[in-house]
Amino acid sequence: MATIVICSVKKTAQTTARRCLSSNLKGLASSAVSPLPLTCTHSPPVRLLPGTRWFSRGSSVRFMSHGTAGRAGAGRTRRGALALSGAAAVTAAAAIAGFLANANHFQCAEMATKVSQAVEENEPELDILQRCRGFMSHPVTDIGVLQERKGEMLTKMEMLIMKTQADFCNALQEVDGGTFKVDRWQRTEGGGGISCVMQGGKVFEKAGVNVSVVFGNLTEEAARQMKSRGKVLKGKDGKLPFCAMGVSSVIHPKNPHIPTVHFNYRYFEIEEEDGSKQWWFGGGTDLTPVYVNKEDGFHFHNTLKEACDKHHSQYYPDFKKWCDRYFYIRHRGETRGIGGIFFDDLDSPSQEEAFNFVKSCAHTVVPCYLPIVYKHLNDSFTDEEKDWQQVRRGRYVEFNLVYDRGVKFGLATPGSRIESILMSLPLTARWEYMHEPAKGTLEAEMLEALRNPKEWV
Amino acid sequence: MATIVICSVKKTAQTTARRCLSSNLKGLASSAVSPLPLTCTHSPPVRLLPGTRWFSRGSSVRFMSHGTAGRAGAGRTRRGALALSGAAAVTAAAAIAGFLANANHFQCAEMATKVSQAVEENEPELDILQRCRGFMSHPVTDIGVLQERKGEMLTKMEMLIMKTQADFCNALQEVDGGTFKVDRWQRTEGGGGISCVMQGGKVFEKAGVNVSVVFGNLTEEAARQMKSRGKVLKGKDGKLPFCAMGVSSVIHPKNPHIPTVHFNYRYFEIEEEDGSKQWWFGGGTDLTPVYVNKEDGFHFHNTLKEACDKHHSQYYPDFKKWCDRYFYIRHRGETRGIGGIFFDDLDSPSQEEAFNFVKSCAHTVVPCYLPIVYKHLNDSFTDEEKDWQQVRRGRYVEFNLVYDRGVKFGLATPGSRIESILMSLPLTARWEYMHEPAKGTLEAEMLEALRNPKEWV
Repeated sequence: MATIVICSVKKTAQTTARRCLSSNLKGLASSAVSPLPLTCTHSPPVRLLPGTRWFSRGSSVRFMSHGTAGRAGAGRTRRGALALSGAAAVTAAAAIAGFLANANHFQCAEMATKVSQAVEENEPELDILQRCRGFMSHPVTDIGVLQERKGEMLTKMEMLIMKTQADFCNALQEVDGGTFKVDRWQRTEGGGGISCVMQGGKVFEKAGVNVSVVFGNLTEEAARQMKSRGKVLKGKDGKLPFCAMGVSSVIHPKNPHIPTVHFNYRYFEIEEEDGSKQWWFGGGTDLTPVYVNKEDGFHFHNTLKEACDKHHSQYYPDFKKWCDRYFYIRHRGETRGIGGIFFDDLDSPSQEEAFNFVKSCAHTVVPCYLPIVYKHLNDSFTDEEKDWQQVRRGRYVEFNLVYDRGVKFGLATPGSRIESILMSLPLTARWEYMHEPAKGTLEAEMLEALRNPKEWV
Repeated sequence: MATIVICSVKKTAQTTARRCLSSNLKGLASSAVSPLPLTCTHSPPVRLLPGTRWFSRGSSVRFMSHGTAGRAGAGRTRRGALALSGAAAVTAAAAIAGFLANANHFQCAEMATKVSQAVEENEPELDILQRCRGFMSHPVTDIGVLQERKGEMLTKMEMLIMKTQADFCNALQEVDGGTFKVDRWQRTEGGGGISCVMQGGKVFEKAGVNVSVVFGNLTEEAARQMKSRGKVLKGKDGKLPFCAMGVSSVIHPKNPHIPTVHFNYRYFEIEEEDGSKQWWFGGGTDLTPVYVNKEDGFHFHNTLKEACDKHHSQYYPDFKKWCDRYFYIRHRGETRGIGGIFFDDLDSPSQEEAFNFVKSCAHTVVPCYLPIVYKHLNDSFTDEEKDWQQVRRGRYVEFNLVYDRGVKFGLATPGSRIESILMSLPLTARWEYMHEPAKGTLEAEMLEALRNPKEWV
């Protein structure tokens, strides 16, 4: 509790520029941690609502209401208990239970109950300010604005992505022992983001969890791209106000027996000439192991399937196939990993129902991945296994730089925050000429699973 | 001399399919070792003209006429002496002399005289078969066909690229002590190539030198791409016979004080409906150091300038600028390295003069680079310097996968030989989040030179 930074409110231009929505951004899937055009500003301690404070625990940052810092532990425990009654906790518990039925040797199964130590997003009695306390930083949008527009989807989604970032970062910090570096940045054209990166940790070689909330007007070129995707959007004086926001993450562990994970959940709004809005959600979570582990594959996919099945029985099978198709390294004839789910352009059956689906997906991130991390935490590995991991990392780089639409869009857009986009690249990678695992090896088994995507559930 | 494989002639379909010329290939620069669509076949010992043999020295392969294997050493020495009277040797000697005047501490300056130990390409008294003896493998085109069409540009260029590959591989093997793995491959649609790779050597982490000679018919899509570049080409029944050939190489040394080098020299022919041919040359050589070394920069650029100046006083300044523009990592705002020369679409003043210019460039590859390798061979380096090299390697990967037109074209073309295209990627690379060298460091000096390309001569 050595470092306490007093903060106060600073109303920004965001307050007025919040009606918005993205067009060329539609269909931009993303392995990138931020596909959006951004300008970085390393901001000094940021001013918030009156009577609030920042305090630092290690190098990570916690947001707390004035005078409650000393009761943080107790408050968090109480909120954690409340959280278990929420949908997310049910999902998490069910997923873990299902997994344990199939593989009862997880070393840290109770981990699932840790998922929701932060404030549960859908507790109606908690106001915006209280719910922000568990975040890695205050939200991109001014808290006053969020409070004013509590019922709007833009607010609900920003709260969800902030919470998803915090939950995941907390879970990773707990297993690693390291702390995330938190960078806030602003985009000159409107909006900004919060990049959390942990590099060279005990467990994770490189872990990035990014939130971005950007808005402004679509360029003509962007509008043309939109049209080519079959959507005709009419702007006022050629301009289409947009807002795009999302949370995305790529985690590269050190141990080759712990897979890499990626997820991204995003929301877009575009305002047309007549004031009507086009909106849609996109996202997905996918796993990239170095070696096949059927139990891990089952757990990961089954956790996603259970979250999907609560909303529509076709979501998992459809989005599983979409994921295999999207994360495909065409020139290698292999997928990047063993998939998961991937969807885009989701604008039905209603905004509320689509949001609830995305929320369920976001809430599965920790229960999908962390049990697998704990399970393999102390697995020993050889130099050859590490080399094979590095070769697979090379393929990860190939996919992200050659095919990922989010990365390509981000790199091609002037003013992008490159470090956030390329945060998804591993710390180290390797390219060996004519590397082909010998038949019958575990490496060959992995390749076979990547060349012929299989059903894991 | 343990392994002798008796060979005999096998006339192939190449004999009849040799009229040819690439359209979408025009303008395809290349950091890739082979940008062309290829199918790999690891061929067994290949049959050649009667009375010829292959013999193996270590894992590298030499081509020799029947019965002269035992006199190889003497033969090579005699040819080496002859070579010194050629234009290449003069260029090499002049370049080295100029460099020594500026930096008299090269440890192995006489190395330049080793450049042309292989048979000199422009010795009229030597026939095709004799000149092939020093190559890494027999040429892609049947030797009988080459002999029949001795005076044609396709033959002259294939002999030049084969000789350039051999000279460079020999020079690298000599300094490293390792041997190149030689892979011959064939392209189903016509043609093939010879990939030479040395990986994990004493000096070189990864060294690739590739030759490819491919032909066939342009697709309609390819023809459209050609038109978009301002050339309208009419094909017979919609087909445009083409031939494309080139030599290209990327060398990644272990020691961070030895720079990476890349070169590529290529020739295209396209046959139009009326039987007339469009032809052009492209190419370039560029250096990617990890640290600034002004002497190295001067030597490298001055060697290129001297080769260019013999042909046109504007070649060096124009092609130097073109190189800085082409090898630019836009999203980083920095060039890949300190440049060199780069040109494309060269179809003047005459085919013979353009070829002579390309020949001069190809002959400078060894004298441009090898003196720099020898100079830094025993430089000590720290872990931090190695890390910085790995970060720069990451940028190399970014350029090659995101911007290089040859790589992009190759990866997008079904049937490409991916291993030859991605041979250009380093064995290892690194991506650190927010890596920015401190002011006043040697790393910052390097970045500055990449952000503001300078004149080295």
